Amino acid sequence: MSRQTIHKRYNFDEGEPLAPWREKIHEIIFEADTGWGKTFDVFLIISIFASVFAVMLDSVDSISTKYQTSLFVAEWSFTVLFTIEYILRLICVRKPMLYARSFYGIVDLLSILPTYLALFLADAKYFLVIRILRVLRVFRIFKLASYIGEASMMMKALRNSHAKISVFLYTVILLVVIFGSLIYVIEGAENGFTSIPTSIYWAIVTLTTVGYGDISPQSPLGQFLASCIMIMGYGLIAVPTGIYSAEITRQAIKEHKEKEITNNACPSCSYEGHDADAVHCKKCGAEL
Amino acid sequence: MSRQTIHKRYNFDEGEPLAPWREKIHEIIFEADTGWGKTFDVFLIISIFASVFAVMLDSVDSISTKYQTSLFVAEWSFTVLFTIEYILRLICVRKPMLYARSFYGIVDLLSILPTYLALFLADAKYFLVIRILRVLRVFRIFKLASYIGEASMMMKALRNSHAKISVFLYTVILLVVIFGSLIYVIEGAENGFTSIPTSIYWAIVTLTTVGYGDISPQSPLGQFLASCIMIMGYGLIAVPTGIYSAEITRQAIKEHKEKEITNNACPSCSYEGHDADAVHCKKCGAEL
Amino acid sequence: MSRQTIHKRYNFDEGEPLAPWREKIHEIIFEADTGWGKTFDVFLIISIFASVFAVMLDSVDSISTKYQTSLFVAEWSFTVLFTIEYILRLICVRKPMLYARSFYGIVDLLSILPTYLALFLADAKYFLVIRILRVLRVFRIFKLASYIGEASMMMKALRNSHAKISVFLYTVILLVVIFGSLIYVIEGAENGFTSIPTSIYWAIVTLTTVGYGDISPQSPLGQFLASCIMIMGYGLIAVPTGIYSAEITRQAIKEHKEKEITNNACPSCSYEGHDADAVHCKKCGAEL
Amino acid sequence: MSRQTIHKRYNFDEGEPLAPWREKIHEIIFEADTGWGKTFDVFLIISIFASVFAVMLDSVDSISTKYQTSLFVAEWSFTVLFTIEYILRLICVRKPMLYARSFYGIVDLLSILPTYLALFLADAKYFLVIRILRVLRVFRIFKLASYIGEASMMMKALRNSHAKISVFLYTVILLVVIFGSLIYVIEGAENGFTSIPTSIYWAIVTLTTVGYGDISPQSPLGQFLASCIMIMGYGLIAVPTGIYSAEITRQAIKEHKEKEITNNACPSCSYEGHDADAVHCKKCGAEL
Repeated sequence: MSRQTIHKRYNFDEGEPLAPWREKIHEIIFEADTGWGKTFDVFLIISIFASVFAVMLDSVDSISTKYQTSLFVAEWSFTVLFTIEYILRLICVRKPMLYARSFYGIVDLLSILPTYLALFLADAKYFLVIRILRVLRVFRIFKLASYIGEASMMMKALRNSHAKISVFLYTVILLVVIFGSLIYVIEGAENGFTSIPTSIYWAIVTLTTVGYGDISPQSPLGQFLASCIMIMGYGLIAVPTGIYSAEITRQAIKEHKEKEITNNACPSCSYEGHDADAVHCKKCGAEL
Repeated sequence: MSRQTIHKRYNFDEGEPLAPWREKIHEIIFEADTGWGKTFDVFLIISIFASVFAVMLDSVDSISTKYQTSLFVAEWSFTVLFTIEYILRLICVRKPMLYARSFYGIVDLLSILPTYLALFLADAKYFLVIRILRVLRVFRIFKLASYIGEASMMMKALRNSHAKISVFLYTVILLVVIFGSLIYVIEGAENGFTSIPTSIYWAIVTLTTVGYGDISPQSPLGQFLASCIMIMGYGLIAVPTGIYSAEITRQAIKEHKEKEITNNACPSCSYEGHDADAVHCKKCGAEL
Repeated sequence: MSRQTIHKRYNFDEGEPLAPWREKIHEIIFEADTGWGKTFDVFLIISIFASVFAVMLDSVDSISTKYQTSLFVAEWSFTVLFTIEYILRLICVRKPMLYARSFYGIVDLLSILPTYLALFLADAKYFLVIRILRVLRVFRIFKLASYIGEASMMMKALRNSHAKISVFLYTVILLVVIFGSLIYVIEGAENGFTSIPTSIYWAIVTLTTVGYGDISPQSPLGQFLASCIMIMGYGLIAVPTGIYSAEITRQAIKEHKEKEITNNACPSCSYEGHDADAVHCKKCGAEL
Repeated sequence: MSRQTIHKRYNFDEGEPLAPWREKIHEIIFEADTGWGKTFDVFLIISIFASVFAVMLDSVDSISTKYQTSLFVAEWSFTVLFTIEYILRLICVRKPMLYARSFYGIVDLLSILPTYLALFLADAKYFLVIRILRVLRVFRIFKLASYIGEASMMMKALRNSHAKISVFLYTVILLVVIFGSLIYVIEGAENGFTSIPTSIYWAIVTLTTVGYGDISPQSPLGQFLASCIMIMGYGLIAVPTGIYSAEITRQAIKEHKEKEITNNACPSCSYEGHDADAVHCKKCGAEL
């Protein structure tokens, strides 16, 4: 979404102007055109990466025992910083609720909540990695328009093939449920297939060609069934790939066509389908 | 298959009308347009998922010992319910045998048989998961037409590339038989390759890039051969993917072209299927 | 290759006719049109599958000790049978050397040699599985023309993208050599990476997404490098797939075009590019 | 890059000719047209492969202890040889720095440095495998033009889809960071997920369908999350494949189109690039 759109959505819908200091904060926090805005954005991105890195280090036993205090301080510093930023964002937009319920608003909130929750529930702090989603702003901030264009094109292709993908996923689920139950009956608990849910998990591991090997069939019949699932999975991968390839190709052709051929009819012979750069009708030679 | 078709296939082929009560049952069970029909269908889908879920739970040791009685009651309740439904379906169609031999008829029967078989053979009950196939009706019931369209298009692409896929499968089988035997000779029983069938199983695990690791080559020569199989499998995956992509693209183009060809009939010879830019009928030469 | 071609290649190049009994044997063994020929072919295919199956069973310890004599007899029977067949084939063609050096001739020879070699070298007998290649005749015998057509189309696509595939393979080899050496230096013998060849084997296992797990990195740096290789392998698979898809699509379009558009020019306006079923020029209406 | 270009880049930019002996050396080392040049190139390639092979053997314990002296001699011989060659290359080009900073110049240097470094740091010698990159010259030397053409076409397709691939990679990184942290909280250190970095490593192993199985989820919830990641990874592979297929197809079509567009210039305005079926110049309207 372009900056203009955000502007409009949160701010300029009503005629009444914001107080100058709110206007100023808005400019720094939400925009990247002015010097201060740019500085703020760069500083923000560094903070995000640093804070995610700190959370990761905190989970490594040898590091967290050694640098316990530093990491504790870092975590709270980042959280306080991001909390202030979140409050400022709420203050400087005209419609705080709209921002709070937007994708970025929710991510911003989820980026600070875990630290407070961790006061009651120790493990909660690891959810701070959700902060990494904030980096998505990077695309917006540095005007990586072509990336956004590509991303939205890829998402569009996904959305267009949404029905096909659902059918594919449903087929995969049907297959793993049925094959999982079959292997459970064939191999049984003594070979590691302790229950149908576990066997379905194994079937997914096999069909997707991941193949951990934590559970694997021992009986000849079980190995035969496993072979069938593997070959099926090996071939089935063609389905999402085929769907997505065709969809992207289709979209590329469509865009290409729209660009290259005009709908203008020749005024003298009415022939249509001229190239966009044509000046004269290619059939009768009349000026277009 | 649309409801109208089913209607025709099982019912309206003969002139004689059904008894009103059979007509009523038919409407409730087979159709989803009336209030009762819809209620029945929703209830059916919930029952199916619940019964499959019960079968899965029953296979988990800790749960099945704790809730033995409840699960036993649930299983028999669902089975009795589905048995009654199956009988009603048989009664209310004009041609019971046609229904019994149709895909859904067979699935409906297989969804109740295992419980009765389990009286003699304990493990049989796990085959009840076949019930999940009954959910395929969901597509029909809720008129998920676009999904059916996509599914049939994907099936059509599969069917069209049927010969290519057979050639591919046969090649894969040839490769794994020959490579499996080779690795058996190279590695032998002391490294886990206890027989040619086991070695073929290993070759399939390797070629499809699943890679359990329950058996893996130890000798340098064996690892070299394994490397060849892996790279082959890594590249071979391009074959089904390429086939399927091309087929889907082809079909999409075909649909597109059919749109570009006009439906205008020639005024003099009534021939249809002219190109959009045709000026004269390509059959008789009359001006279009 | 069609039967007629084989006929010509082995037989009818010279004017002099074969002796009638050789002609008769030739008809039975090489052709499938007459009753005896068909019977022979069906019998041959059954023998091939049975003999391959026997070799496989022979490698399973529990079976080979139990049915040692039967399997020994079976193996020698099949070998004697195939030897007689091979000699007959040599006798009844006009140019035995040409047959002996053809693909099928070599496969036929390799299908009998291992049994004789096994007199000196026990393991040699397992190479008898090469017999499975003889089943390729099945395509020829039962005139599975469409399958041959598809197979040759797929082979053609492979051959056309031959240069691209070589480049891809060379890139893969370069990558695994360099990454394998890197991981060897990083992880070292104490984590299972005992030598550069072994480490290259591991790099292949990882890049092709097989992932046995018999060797896996333990140090953080090693796991980081492994992650890079995995993501690279995950993305690289797009290359052969893309090449092959594009090639198949290209070929399909080419065939389609050749079928649909003639090169005939309109005799009156010289317009070219008419559909194959066009009778009149679509521009000026003149008869083609 | 063609030989002529290299020639120009390193040599003929200035008018002043090289001394005859430098000219001679240049001809032998950099070119492959004369007898001596070809001999040198063939000898070079053999040396490269032999030296890389020696480095690999050196890393195998059993071999390196047995043939310690021979391998030591071989390594130093190859290094001295390549050092002399490197110096000669520097001498015989007019602009040594330009060569030294070119891709091949750097590879040539990296191919000799590790042996000298190994005097101080034992493991450094294994980096000698970088020598394998020198073989890329093979493409240039033997004028494997079609291979270079294909390679550059494949690289071009990669470069064109560069933005899409970045978006894809960033998505993958986001996913593995978030899923890795989730599984760390769910499974914890007692099931092998000792830290978030390790868990992210596991998420990459799973998403890319490698699946070592060195770490695998044990709890039902962990296995459920793993199943989601696997299916996601199984489907996501469609994205790079789709992107690359579409790009290659697009490029192939573009090349095809360029062929369909005639090179005829308009006789009146000299505009080129008319469609093959154009009758009038689409710029000025003059008859073609």
